[in-house]
Amino acid sequence: MSTATAGKGLEGIVAANSGVCWIDGEAGVLAYRGIDIHELAENSTFEETTYLLWNGKLPNQTELRAFQAELAQARQLDQRIIDLLRSFPSTATPMEVLRTAVSALSFYDPDEKDNTHDANVRKAYNLTSQMAMIVAVYDRIRKGKEIVPADKSLSHAANFLWMLTGTKPTETATRTLDTALILHADHELNASTFAARVIAATLSDIHSAITGAIGALKGPLHGGANEAVMRLLRAIDQAGVDPVEHVKGMLAAKQKISGFGHRVYRTEDPRATHLRRMSEQLGNDAGQTKWFEMSRAIELYINREKKLNANVDFYSASTYAMLGIDVDLYTPIFALSRIAGWSAHVIEQLDDNRLIRPRAEYIGPVYPQPWVPVDQRA
Amino acid sequence: MSTATAGKGLEGIVAANSGVCWIDGEAGVLAYRGIDIHELAENSTFEETTYLLWNGKLPNQTELRAFQAELAQARQLDQRIIDLLRSFPSTATPMEVLRTAVSALSFYDPDEKDNTHDANVRKAYNLTSQMAMIVAVYDRIRKGKEIVPADKSLSHAANFLWMLTGTKPTETATRTLDTALILHADHELNASTFAARVIAATLSDIHSAITGAIGALKGPLHGGANEAVMRLLRAIDQAGVDPVEHVKGMLAAKQKISGFGHRVYRTEDPRATHLRRMSEQLGNDAGQTKWFEMSRAIELYINREKKLNANVDFYSASTYAMLGIDVDLYTPIFALSRIAGWSAHVIEQLDDNRLIRPRAEYIGPVYPQPWVPVDQRA
Repeated sequence: MSTATAGKGLEGIVAANSGVCWIDGEAGVLAYRGIDIHELAENSTFEETTYLLWNGKLPNQTELRAFQAELAQARQLDQRIIDLLRSFPSTATPMEVLRTAVSALSFYDPDEKDNTHDANVRKAYNLTSQMAMIVAVYDRIRKGKEIVPADKSLSHAANFLWMLTGTKPTETATRTLDTALILHADHELNASTFAARVIAATLSDIHSAITGAIGALKGPLHGGANEAVMRLLRAIDQAGVDPVEHVKGMLAAKQKISGFGHRVYRTEDPRATHLRRMSEQLGNDAGQTKWFEMSRAIELYINREKKLNANVDFYSASTYAMLGIDVDLYTPIFALSRIAGWSAHVIEQLDDNRLIRPRAEYIGPVYPQPWVPVDQRA
Repeated sequence: MSTATAGKGLEGIVAANSGVCWIDGEAGVLAYRGIDIHELAENSTFEETTYLLWNGKLPNQTELRAFQAELAQARQLDQRIIDLLRSFPSTATPMEVLRTAVSALSFYDPDEKDNTHDANVRKAYNLTSQMAMIVAVYDRIRKGKEIVPADKSLSHAANFLWMLTGTKPTETATRTLDTALILHADHELNASTFAARVIAATLSDIHSAITGAIGALKGPLHGGANEAVMRLLRAIDQAGVDPVEHVKGMLAAKQKISGFGHRVYRTEDPRATHLRRMSEQLGNDAGQTKWFEMSRAIELYINREKKLNANVDFYSASTYAMLGIDVDLYTPIFALSRIAGWSAHVIEQLDDNRLIRPRAEYIGPVYPQPWVPVDQRA
């Protein structure tokens, strides 16, 4: 068999055909099903964007209403999942909890053994609504607060904030989170989506694929970066140091600054544009501009010194901070959004499936090495 | 950016350098760290093979004793994991349970947040011992039987059979399972191992990587195939039909026969050679040769008609059946073995890491599609 050597990390290798997401890394263009992310961020909702990702076109009014109703109807969490969340130690991080609870959801999904297109769409509805509830419910449990029941009259973003805080969110907060969910909903074959497709391609179930994707998103080179950005901003704030001096020191010590650079973009990440704008606006509205100002100073310095642009993670940190969200919920919120794209990719993979099974370039001891009995080994 | 189009399913694409496993698909050669699988199947043990996969060389007597002691010492399951297993519905399949419980193990592993090489080796010891215990303990629980405490004086294979059955296994049973564990321990960049590496490459934790790998192994195009083989043999047996006639009918109806063909091998899968031998021997010893005979008849027919060879899954079915193991434990047993290879690959990936992030060939609506307000959509 002939093999072709790929760049390390499969850089530049096409691993699948996909109609979900278009990225032009040189021009800084991102589009879902052909529609520019700027249009969606300004005009759409998470529900409408999810419909677009799953169905390939924007819904008309009847379709949108039906879709919203389906998602709201799926805001149900089996009591045994709530009991499960209560059984977890309070030291468990929300990403570990989300990974474990999503895996357990398969026990109670009546469609678990049905891997058809239609069943996977039904499971995608359930997962989208359930994942948001799991994150909110676990946060209430670990803080010793009462669980807030879902409100089916609210949008997906508003219901999440409601279940998280027990307070009806402001329009600004809802719109900010909704826009963030739109921006994070898909990004072609990023590592977590690719992991989901590799798992699904064995004809395993969608719960397995999404559980694996959550595990991948957790990593600091992927979704975990937004939490790392906020930890940096907090450390700078607490130490009362100049942000640029601090970052200069980190670079001198060869430390990585999270939230900058991207495998695909060679110019500004179009998602960063909106998150920067929201971060600034929320800061101005609240009269607390320190996170934005600190972020902006770091961004300008890194732009100049390292020729790296802020990515989706950089300004999501200060944006979520202004919404009063705990740092270790930032990556789970990424997951709440990316479930839309993960589902679209898993369903697309299964509609025209082939096992994803590359080869390795062997660099170990030359074959054959001799077998030596244990008493004769050095 | 330039991209290269790969074969569908990344066929023939080199996705990583690896010194763990060498496969020559044309010649039917499989070797771990350069040592032929036939040598290992005939002379080694699962513990020794795991040491080889993790350390790149066979252990001497002192190293082997220390390694066996470490693995036996790790035969401990937190009471909260046992409580978790008790909380699962009895309808949950062992693969769903294993996936969920391995995810939950991270809550209680003191090294969870330490992603260094040494910490991951420690976690690999724990996972190897804990996964075998989880499968055995859950099977006891779902059958309403008492949990059998681990016996640290036994080998890994013998302890698993002991905890599963509550009876000290015969030498033949132990040696059969031990050989099966050796044969399944690694296979280069198979789908589950590749999923584990994609997840690990985001710098996520090893529990995330192994949880995702279990989800991938569950698929019927991967580890799930051994269960599908046994279900076919049983269906033939219960219907009392001729196995070749039955398979002929399935092929005519365009149904897939599990356990045949392989992405990499173009000749006999060297693992099948040993599993065929063990299946036949166990059948002769027990005076119950029907599973072997049925399997052999199907194999010869598929060889002749479809030019496909039996793979690792085909004779593992009748081998495990002769050991009296429930069908839905076949894929979990594959996982108990493959954890050795998964761990070796995750650790190798992290020792020289780069994010695994391929591209997609876009086949969706041409960019840019117009944004249309909802009341103007068809």
